Amino acid sequence: MSITLNSPLDMHLHLRDEEMLQTVAPLSSSTFSGAIIMPNLVPPISTKEALDEYKNRIKMAIGEDTFTPYMTLFFKPTYTKEFLESMGDELIAIKLYPAGITTNSEGGVNGFEVEELRPTLTAMSELGIPLCIHGETNGFVMDREAEFVSIYEMLATNFPKLKIIMEHITTKESVEALDRFPNLYATITLHHLLITLDDVAGGMLQPHLFCKPIAKRPEDREALRKIALEGHPKVMFGSDSAPHPQHAKESCGCAAGVFTSPIAIQVLTELFMKHSNLQKLQAFVSDNAKRIYKNIKVPKKTIILEKKPFIVPQKYGTVVPMYAGEELAYSII
Amino acid sequence: MSITLNSPLDMHLHLRDEEMLQTVAPLSSSTFSGAIIMPNLVPPISTKEALDEYKNRIKMAIGEDTFTPYMTLFFKPTYTKEFLESMGDELIAIKLYPAGITTNSEGGVNGFEVEELRPTLTAMSELGIPLCIHGETNGFVMDREAEFVSIYEMLATNFPKLKIIMEHITTKESVEALDRFPNLYATITLHHLLITLDDVAGGMLQPHLFCKPIAKRPEDREALRKIALEGHPKVMFGSDSAPHPQHAKESCGCAAGVFTSPIAIQVLTELFMKHSNLQKLQAFVSDNAKRIYKNIKVPKKTIILEKKPFIVPQKYGTVVPMYAGEELAYSII
Repeated sequence: MSITLNSPLDMHLHLRDEEMLQTVAPLSSSTFSGAIIMPNLVPPISTKEALDEYKNRIKMAIGEDTFTPYMTLFFKPTYTKEFLESMGDELIAIKLYPAGITTNSEGGVNGFEVEELRPTLTAMSELGIPLCIHGETNGFVMDREAEFVSIYEMLATNFPKLKIIMEHITTKESVEALDRFPNLYATITLHHLLITLDDVAGGMLQPHLFCKPIAKRPEDREALRKIALEGHPKVMFGSDSAPHPQHAKESCGCAAGVFTSPIAIQVLTELFMKHSNLQKLQAFVSDNAKRIYKNIKVPKKTIILEKKPFIVPQKYGTVVPMYAGEELAYSII
Repeated sequence: MSITLNSPLDMHLHLRDEEMLQTVAPLSSSTFSGAIIMPNLVPPISTKEALDEYKNRIKMAIGEDTFTPYMTLFFKPTYTKEFLESMGDELIAIKLYPAGITTNSEGGVNGFEVEELRPTLTAMSELGIPLCIHGETNGFVMDREAEFVSIYEMLATNFPKLKIIMEHITTKESVEALDRFPNLYATITLHHLLITLDDVAGGMLQPHLFCKPIAKRPEDREALRKIALEGHPKVMFGSDSAPHPQHAKESCGCAAGVFTSPIAIQVLTELFMKHSNLQKLQAFVSDNAKRIYKNIKVPKKTIILEKKPFIVPQKYGTVVPMYAGEELAYSII
């Protein structure tokens, strides 16, 4: 038996820049039809020029036309409607980071004063630009996302026409919030469907599984699995694949991020197969995203998988992937 | 102003063996009058010969008489009263590990069947040998210690004459258990008085602060600080200082343990000073232990500290200490 997926999409991806971009971009473009590209470069993407140039660098790194990088701006409350209109069709979404919450987010939002955010968010609502949010407070690491739910709710209430994507959700609290507001959506990563804090710090410490938001409790993982496996219409796959060189992961002060781009589709297939929900995988990895992001064009791509062992390479360039050296059950053929 | 401490004791210490023993033993003996020495070598200490030989190796590594290694056996439910009597005065305590719960604990206890444990624990009660326990289940990493409280209670109830030391407690649940049973005592480490999971995994991942039990929540740290700073009569300082070579900490699959022996007294002094509880430090680092462990002989040693910067070395041999390269406020003079 083979499994065919049509035009898979990765709705949350870090491609970085320069040498790392050259390494990782082809690993996404070979499997996915498109991806929402995170803007947290140094400096973050906040002008039309920077966005266009980054898109060109990504296209150069990929060298083919069957993958579309969906470009995003780094949220600033000073963006005007005129500025956003001037971005044209190239701007697919805007990513909001609380200041300092993760890699290269220092220029993010300090405090969530609705009146300060209103002009930009109203413009985004009118122009139909979705707002992607890294939803964590600066509280205790296991509570940060649950504490942020009240901010999601405040934004969803005040901007009912704004599509708000709760990015890489990791808690049952976020799952519960999803159905309370018609304009809240979510992405879920591969790794948060698989691991808990036990896998990061329950045995030996595993730096390659350290990420932000940190993996949570077993009951949180269960809540995420449930909505992903049922193909919940407001939930999309977003890998948050976040490469760092090996030395930045295996050191004193390890950077946050799990690198999953080259294994994501294979492992998702195994997970959905194992739970007898294979018929929902197409919705999770593509159809829901197409419906939620009305403004994306999706190149046709057919990915065929078979139950055939795939040994994950120890490294791609300088980056150690999740499951490095291990055998996966499914291969892309 | 100078601060004088009489005969500080470290009631939970890992000295390891061979080269590591040579490196770390003098760093404890220069500051402390004695320490409870953990038996989790490979193989664990479980015979009189192994215990005597290890004690001799420790004495050789120290080369002076003003520090006493208080020797322990690795708990096995097969120890008879005759065997324990044959150990003589050299045996100060027995350390119980649940199987596989931490470094070199594979030969520990599987399940806690009271009737299986009764012969050895009854003999220990009669001989006045305290039982030191690493109290964690194999549950979710943040719940393991709280889940173990019911086992502490079962043991405390069934063996009312046995002194049970809850080692390196990290949670408010263990603090609350302390006063519910007259025969429950506890050690607290330096690092669990200072850090929470935020310090380990809230920013970058910090392998040198990764330990077992893992650091918990802010409210847990508060509960620990409260009983330590008040010099609670059932609570003793036990560093759980656990050296690993740098390469075993900064790698894929980092070993658990924080190395604090050379900085413990200085940082405790600063902590007690900061909270205006300096008058309780003597109880926490020595007097309580002398009263609880009636079977120890404590060499006289006077440690004098002054408020004078101490730059912590980057390494002691191959081991990176807590606060490596940082400046502490107090020095031993």
